[in-house]
Amino acid sequence: MITLASDFGSPYPAAMRGVLARRTDARVVDVTHDLPRQDVRGAAFWLRFVLPEFPPAVHCAVVDPGVGTDRDAVVVRAGDHLLVGPDNGSLLPPARALAGDDDPEVFEWRVEDPASSTFHGRDVFAPAAAAVHEGAPPGTAESAENLLALDQVARTDEFVDLTLPEPTVRESGADGEVLVVDDFGNAITNVPGTTLPAPPDEGGPGSITVDGERVPLVSTFAGVDPGERLVTVGSHGYLECDVNRGRGDEAFDLEPGASVTFRWGTSG
Amino acid sequence: MITLASDFGSPYPAAMRGVLARRTDARVVDVTHDLPRQDVRGAAFWLRFVLPEFPPAVHCAVVDPGVGTDRDAVVVRAGDHLLVGPDNGSLLPPARALAGDDDPEVFEWRVEDPASSTFHGRDVFAPAAAAVHEGAPPGTAESAENLLALDQVARTDEFVDLTLPEPTVRESGADGEVLVVDDFGNAITNVPGTTLPAPPDEGGPGSITVDGERVPLVSTFAGVDPGERLVTVGSHGYLECDVNRGRGDEAFDLEPGASVTFRWGTSG
Amino acid sequence: MITLASDFGSPYPAAMRGVLARRTDARVVDVTHDLPRQDVRGAAFWLRFVLPEFPPAVHCAVVDPGVGTDRDAVVVRAGDHLLVGPDNGSLLPPARALAGDDDPEVFEWRVEDPASSTFHGRDVFAPAAAAVHEGAPPGTAESAENLLALDQVARTDEFVDLTLPEPTVRESGADGEVLVVDDFGNAITNVPGTTLPAPPDEGGPGSITVDGERVPLVSTFAGVDPGERLVTVGSHGYLECDVNRGRGDEAFDLEPGASVTFRWGTSG
Repeated sequence: MITLASDFGSPYPAAMRGVLARRTDARVVDVTHDLPRQDVRGAAFWLRFVLPEFPPAVHCAVVDPGVGTDRDAVVVRAGDHLLVGPDNGSLLPPARALAGDDDPEVFEWRVEDPASSTFHGRDVFAPAAAAVHEGAPPGTAESAENLLALDQVARTDEFVDLTLPEPTVRESGADGEVLVVDDFGNAITNVPGTTLPAPPDEGGPGSITVDGERVPLVSTFAGVDPGERLVTVGSHGYLECDVNRGRGDEAFDLEPGASVTFRWGTSG
Repeated sequence: MITLASDFGSPYPAAMRGVLARRTDARVVDVTHDLPRQDVRGAAFWLRFVLPEFPPAVHCAVVDPGVGTDRDAVVVRAGDHLLVGPDNGSLLPPARALAGDDDPEVFEWRVEDPASSTFHGRDVFAPAAAAVHEGAPPGTAESAENLLALDQVARTDEFVDLTLPEPTVRESGADGEVLVVDDFGNAITNVPGTTLPAPPDEGGPGSITVDGERVPLVSTFAGVDPGERLVTVGSHGYLECDVNRGRGDEAFDLEPGASVTFRWGTSG
Repeated sequence: MITLASDFGSPYPAAMRGVLARRTDARVVDVTHDLPRQDVRGAAFWLRFVLPEFPPAVHCAVVDPGVGTDRDAVVVRAGDHLLVGPDNGSLLPPARALAGDDDPEVFEWRVEDPASSTFHGRDVFAPAAAAVHEGAPPGTAESAENLLALDQVARTDEFVDLTLPEPTVRESGADGEVLVVDDFGNAITNVPGTTLPAPPDEGGPGSITVDGERVPLVSTFAGVDPGERLVTVGSHGYLECDVNRGRGDEAFDLEPGASVTFRWGTSG
């Protein structure tokens, strides 16, 4: 199986599907082509969220603001999964989630003379994903050979790494950051729900302050009336600022990168 | 075959595709993930329109404004099709269309401790769809057993039902309602084209009044000039208020739920 | 393999997927359903760009502003590919790209009494694509027979043709036209990059004037600072007016059909 993810919208991903169909009979599954545009960190967040749901696969994921510069291309081995994309850090957070207790291994190559300097999804990464997929099962000696069969691929420790920012957690709260805003307008932060004294539906605090304003802390959107603001622990495990049947990003005035301060102590 | 439909936009449906790929080799076909957001009735309209085009399949369809409340989950058997989703009525109009002369049978279970209280598409319905699919062909004794293998699944008559609203039809017209607005801006009503004295291309009236204003009644968009308003019978069989190469919802000031009065009598 | 392309957005394409799934086990790959709406020329541009990436396939492509009029339906044989869609010219530019040195052959039939006069994607073209696919491999005598098995299909020379407009090229520049604006806001013209005295990364001019204003001519978006305007040769081979991490159509005030004058001579 090969999965495809990008920020290309439409119709560019179709060119990648064609390139793959010419080179492999692998089942191809689109993850999404609406990753946050040219946002390496946002892409890393979503890929870390969704790729672990898949069985072992080759994941071709291209959010690539540096396309056409001299950034390299990488294949990352993570457990039984392989990730293919640009060397800009976007693949490392999902790779760590996929690799479990092991460290991901990064193989890197220099992109020489692609057909275009603006569409490496078609010209570099889709062909590489097909090549890797047609090799031996990932995680075996044979697949290492297959990786080496890509021009100039060698394991490296000098790749671009990325770690999603950690919040500052205190007994009574946390200072965090909005990582992404989803299609529903939910502003998803980097503060894990596990930092709460208890989950909302198991005796946790009934409310929380967000940047000084008190908001219900509930286990589900339906815990407040339509149009009302709320904080909940989303399906990714992080605190998010939402509105039931509305847009949290607008109601809280939050966008990716914005700081957000939560307080759950009684002092507000 | 398993089909997927939701109002999740992107990238949440990818998590459902991953869950399915881990559990079954079934062919997975996306219906759409842009169903009208949190609109149970709109979802029912579109599912009733599109699912009958498919061969026998398991249809996993999740438009679920009550996620995280104590609403139950259902599997609906409808002819050779099975539908899986929340117990909110959205599956019943398509199930009746799929079941033909028979009544759909509803099997229901209580959702216990899912991994999240906000993403049952991933945590409840996709796994249930895979489980049902891996059973015997729908409609056989074996598939009934397989349904029962889901925790606490039993046939019920106490499910949430939904019937799309019927128009009031008179000899000279009909009082109806807009059910959905499609991507093109066509405002689709609940008034069947069969209520017209004759189809527009077979001697039917050449015009119709919409809320008191006379508009051409034509068999195709191209029956009026670009930018002009029209009423036609859409591919779903209902009267819709459109603009050739424009947006009918804006030109007629209509949105889902809006009342609309058609008159085809000479008295206007 | 059958590919699907349209300007239908969502959820109409699902009906086409269902129709295909009922009639064939062929692998179905969505190209895109966000082709420029009711823009035959824009559709032709994108189809010519993306279909040549695919292996031999039946391509069902429906951008059809004339649906419901008496326009005919066509199957176009182009090399080892077959294209199915309305007789409005949209299939000819991609067919010529797919046919290589040969001429495409056009087979035409009159659409009689379809189930709807507004959704021929479901009622005419998807069934025809399935029928053609279930025939012999394209390009053989058997497939010609299969084509003839469609009602009233016969080769014709009286189809609607379409040629994308050619620019006027001078030694010091070119007068062209914007053909499409992509999802990123890049305004893509009909001026081939090969008209430049040399490519931007091989000693070509470092700047170019667009409608009299001087703009950097670079080989990649990253060649200018974020927010800055640029001209580059896109992955389709044509000059496009872009903004690094922004929208070129807005910054240059260009839309499909707009004239654009490039000058690369020193006289500006």
